[in-house]
Amino acid sequence: MATARTPIPHETSGLAAPSAAQPVPGDSYVQSFARGLAVIRSFSAQSPRQTLSEVAGRAQLTRAGARRILLTLQTLGYVKSDGKLFELTPRILDLGFAYLSSLPLWNLAEPVMQELVGQIKESCSAAVLNGTDIVYVLRVPTHKIMSISLGVGSRLPAYCTSMGRMLLSALPPDAMMNVLQASDRTARTCFTVTDVDELAAKIAQVRNQGWSLVDQELEEGLVSMAAPITDRSGHTIAAINISGQANRTSAKVMQETMLPRLLAAAQSISSQLTIQRS
Amino acid sequence: MATARTPIPHETSGLAAPSAAQPVPGDSYVQSFARGLAVIRSFSAQSPRQTLSEVAGRAQLTRAGARRILLTLQTLGYVKSDGKLFELTPRILDLGFAYLSSLPLWNLAEPVMQELVGQIKESCSAAVLNGTDIVYVLRVPTHKIMSISLGVGSRLPAYCTSMGRMLLSALPPDAMMNVLQASDRTARTCFTVTDVDELAAKIAQVRNQGWSLVDQELEEGLVSMAAPITDRSGHTIAAINISGQANRTSAKVMQETMLPRLLAAAQSISSQLTIQRS
Repeated sequence: MATARTPIPHETSGLAAPSAAQPVPGDSYVQSFARGLAVIRSFSAQSPRQTLSEVAGRAQLTRAGARRILLTLQTLGYVKSDGKLFELTPRILDLGFAYLSSLPLWNLAEPVMQELVGQIKESCSAAVLNGTDIVYVLRVPTHKIMSISLGVGSRLPAYCTSMGRMLLSALPPDAMMNVLQASDRTARTCFTVTDVDELAAKIAQVRNQGWSLVDQELEEGLVSMAAPITDRSGHTIAAINISGQANRTSAKVMQETMLPRLLAAAQSISSQLTIQRS
Repeated sequence: MATARTPIPHETSGLAAPSAAQPVPGDSYVQSFARGLAVIRSFSAQSPRQTLSEVAGRAQLTRAGARRILLTLQTLGYVKSDGKLFELTPRILDLGFAYLSSLPLWNLAEPVMQELVGQIKESCSAAVLNGTDIVYVLRVPTHKIMSISLGVGSRLPAYCTSMGRMLLSALPPDAMMNVLQASDRTARTCFTVTDVDELAAKIAQVRNQGWSLVDQELEEGLVSMAAPITDRSGHTIAAINISGQANRTSAKVMQETMLPRLLAAAQSISSQLTIQRS
């Protein structure tokens, strides 16, 4: 299953030919690369060290195919093995680091977010939209044992999170509706809004007011507010949020006391982005 | 240059044959994968959005080869393009996340590190060894504008960092000497120890005392102390550190006031690892 097929001629010829914008899903090269990445993703908290058979099972490859890819990853330093068990190496972080450090807000946002966390004593995160999910790209935790632990790279559904609704509000209406339709809108709590039209109305409100608040729709007890980070052309490129526990601070109190500071922090990051890129 | 060659038969046949432990560097499959990863790494803070030619230049590929890989990455959702400029998408973080979440200390260490940062008001990080470098895997910043900003996935040389020396002290002597010999031991400050024998002596001292302190050898004004995280079998799997500014707190005062707390935090994480895995 992992044998490389002879490439179809048009896939390797030409430079910026008209087909350049068209990816070629049937390409053996694409398949090989996809399988390599599937092997990487087969490792997790539940399966940090795996045998060849386990990798093959989780990545849905034959043992021969899985073995070939594991040896490839081992050659490249992304996997190590004691001969029987395979595990990932930290070299894999180079790839995510290439992405994170290419984000324009990477260096700018963190000091501002740290200052905000110092003021409000709640965690602050930044996320971007990816399909129907938000993906965390920066995190400044507060020093409370109870704080919500979501590492960089964590995903949450966009439709029921404050940063998700903030980011969805910046999409063209059609694209926003497509994301809502494509989302797995399973109710997370008794407060979760799952109806597409109702969500669209809430997102329209977010667009008008310039911030979002989600009260226990993702998780009971969890309240979160988000504000947009915009680049010099006014495009929303990310959102930042703060979240707290409803039993410590109600949504209403959070909005009154913390929202102005959140908006000021988002504005400060956006202004610096404008200056940096002009 | 990026065409997939017909695979050599022995590379795809057999399961756990004796050759299983031997990666096959000449494999076209390995080369293809390596090129894909080189394209990912060509993106950075300096080049977040690149043309085809820029990617080809930075990844040392032909334009045709670079184009094919970019289309592959685009098909798989790791790259997006407006037709002219290419950029990475946050999907790339899934790969690093697979690694980070597979670390046994991932969930355990953070609350302990947060508590430590709350006590000492200095940043705390965790890192692992990778070749001659340490790689940051967890970070709890303090809320000071001056704090040192090193994201997860950042690399620093092991020989001149407190976590590096801690991790090197856990290697067999031969392996430790090999890392020192292979390191680019350029002096970073006037305090940097670069002589291999002198470094080996310092690392032996670290091994004996069970902690390390590096005083302005990486950067002027920066003092850092590290302690080991060990698994249930007593193997060092990571190090945690705290660092501060010499002009705020001298190395001597840091050692007196903060070292006991750092050691207690490392011990707490290590104990939890022992319980978790037994």
